[in-house]
Amino acid sequence: MHSRSEGPGRGEEPSAVAPRELAAMRRALELAGAEVGSTGSNPAVGCVLLDAEGTTVATGVHRGPGTPHAEVDALRRARGRHRGTTAVVTLEPCDHQGRTGPCSKALIEAGVRRVLYAVADPNRVAAGGARRLADAGVEVVGGVLGAEAEAVLEMWLTAVRAGRPFVTWKFAATLDGRSAAADGSARWISSAESRADAHELRARHDAVLVGSGTWRSDDPRLDLRHGVVGHPPLRIALDARGELPPDSRLLDGAAPTLVVTDPATGTADHGESESNNNSGINTSTNTSTSRGANSGPDVLRLKTDARGHFPPLDLLAALDGRGVRSVLVEGGPALAASFVRAGLVDRVVAYVAPLLLGSEGVSATGPLGIGSIREAHRFRITSVDRIGPDLRIELRPPARTGGTQ
Amino acid sequence: MHSRSEGPGRGEEPSAVAPRELAAMRRALELAGAEVGSTGSNPAVGCVLLDAEGTTVATGVHRGPGTPHAEVDALRRARGRHRGTTAVVTLEPCDHQGRTGPCSKALIEAGVRRVLYAVADPNRVAAGGARRLADAGVEVVGGVLGAEAEAVLEMWLTAVRAGRPFVTWKFAATLDGRSAAADGSARWISSAESRADAHELRARHDAVLVGSGTWRSDDPRLDLRHGVVGHPPLRIALDARGELPPDSRLLDGAAPTLVVTDPATGTADHGESESNNNSGINTSTNTSTSRGANSGPDVLRLKTDARGHFPPLDLLAALDGRGVRSVLVEGGPALAASFVRAGLVDRVVAYVAPLLLGSEGVSATGPLGIGSIREAHRFRITSVDRIGPDLRIELRPPARTGGTQ
Repeated sequence: MHSRSEGPGRGEEPSAVAPRELAAMRRALELAGAEVGSTGSNPAVGCVLLDAEGTTVATGVHRGPGTPHAEVDALRRARGRHRGTTAVVTLEPCDHQGRTGPCSKALIEAGVRRVLYAVADPNRVAAGGARRLADAGVEVVGGVLGAEAEAVLEMWLTAVRAGRPFVTWKFAATLDGRSAAADGSARWISSAESRADAHELRARHDAVLVGSGTWRSDDPRLDLRHGVVGHPPLRIALDARGELPPDSRLLDGAAPTLVVTDPATGTADHGESESNNNSGINTSTNTSTSRGANSGPDVLRLKTDARGHFPPLDLLAALDGRGVRSVLVEGGPALAASFVRAGLVDRVVAYVAPLLLGSEGVSATGPLGIGSIREAHRFRITSVDRIGPDLRIELRPPARTGGTQ
Repeated sequence: MHSRSEGPGRGEEPSAVAPRELAAMRRALELAGAEVGSTGSNPAVGCVLLDAEGTTVATGVHRGPGTPHAEVDALRRARGRHRGTTAVVTLEPCDHQGRTGPCSKALIEAGVRRVLYAVADPNRVAAGGARRLADAGVEVVGGVLGAEAEAVLEMWLTAVRAGRPFVTWKFAATLDGRSAAADGSARWISSAESRADAHELRARHDAVLVGSGTWRSDDPRLDLRHGVVGHPPLRIALDARGELPPDSRLLDGAAPTLVVTDPATGTADHGESESNNNSGINTSTNTSTSRGANSGPDVLRLKTDARGHFPPLDLLAALDGRGVRSVLVEGGPALAASFVRAGLVDRVVAYVAPLLLGSEGVSATGPLGIGSIREAHRFRITSVDRIGPDLRIELRPPARTGGTQ
């Protein structure tokens, strides 16, 4: 169960973790998992405080920048019964003075006796909490249900480790790989069940990205519907030439929108809020501002390449600077292909419908520049589910680290 | 358990079938299932004889034209202990004097007391066995494990009911629906595990069919490899213009081959055994002859349409006349598309590999003449299995009867 053991707990036997502690970690992971997609640039973290008998004293969860970290949330909810407890937390307690104080210090001051965590903090700024706790005489065990926690925190961990947002490419296609018929009609290739699932997927990501072909043909809302509740993702529209129509649904103010244009393009007249410099990367806009709804669209100016396309890695770097930790690439085929070619797809979610459209249909993937079978982009299937009449297939690169293939 | 009840057993309660009889039917279905693909134009049938205590006296199985039917096989193996037994048989006993006598008569003469069968015989010539048995005072119950038996006998039942062979279209493709890279390379899109499974599929069919594009590019053997044992299927190569090279592997004599040409085409010089008339449909060649190995290829002359293609239904009618009850369409895309367009695909078996080849790759389906999404060919997924790194997806038409959509 212990994928690894960090800090003073290194080499600790699994038997050193009590069954009630493992159960508490599972509960903490559930709490964290429910917040994925709602915590902005911060990780979703859960915490459970246990008394000496292993009974839960309080639970805590982190809800995003500016709100208490999970440990502090749990300590507050303990209403004074925190002394001598065991804190079971999904991520190594931070050692960083940000908008909130370091959790390591808060735990020590609260008289917490023992700390179990699942995953070490990959963030250099925040790491070191385990050591500080141990130095203060607190028992620390790391790596508890580490593999499970890696799965819950997959997107955030990948983003922090790689220094760019985690990328999920989602598409719906027929069994013969078509995302639309010859006339462009695509409503609906996948079933209502698959579409509802795709909206759940949106709710789990910080941002949803579409290329100009998609907003031109579909005028999408990119919001949460189908009964899905959650934090609406930032809607990102690539618009190199400043042609997004002012009456586009993406500009309806119902959710925050970021329009990405080339610096050479004149400002389109859709009431955008300029917040950029000419470097193409804006790091001044903090996450809460850029995700505030009911304002005009935010604009990111980013240089296109010789073919007029935004280099995917440049785009991701700019988004990382804005605190975006996960991006759902929703289309179209050419945009998805540019991410696949760059080795920047960390997960594919394919909704495959039992339909055939034939070779006249629109290909679900754009050009990948592949001549021979040996050059094929290889993934591995990590899950398959039947969803309504369709299949939902998840794939990841053979080697997950860094999202490269 | 009883999907339907036929003949004198109609309305019989499930409770009238003893647990040991149900177990015997399961065994009979296993015996039948093992022979699917080996019985030529005849159905795979299993039979179990039970004594009054429900103990198995003997089992029997049919192995194809010219060999005993399952009931007769079981009666012979009973070595005189057949009187008063219950015959549990997967298909209604025939009432037809063919190369072997009617099974109904054999069962009556053997003093069998009771007959349970799963599926009524859809063959008009052979049907009526249940009635004759009942008229002779034998207890008869039909529809026992009928649904299970329909699944085992699916191909043969569809063929007899529709008057043409059951058609399985098998293909291997990438997640984005490509069966080869831009340069035509396709070895290997699917894994060794998937390819072995595809050879199992061959062994279950009477015939394997490829179009001219496939034998031109792949020079396939279409035999059983990957450790698969079984009856080698008839290899059918479409060759409208008589261009199949004499040194093709399909002409290696290792398994029977049928070359389909247009009557207007001069006879190619590859030692073929002419056995056709100009009607394009040859019904004179019986199955055992046409499946005999180590002879030159058999030739079927069939008129092509205005575009030089063989109309799929004409081809199937000709094959039906030759006793072929199941055809595995192995490619290529254009041939498969012609069957899909004609609504003549009864089952799709897709091996989907976790690869992407992009829009430059060769489409797994040819042109389907579809303009709008509403015209898409619809199937339903009937099974999904992970096989090695790939997915094996089976699909069937929404309405199975007759294979139309």
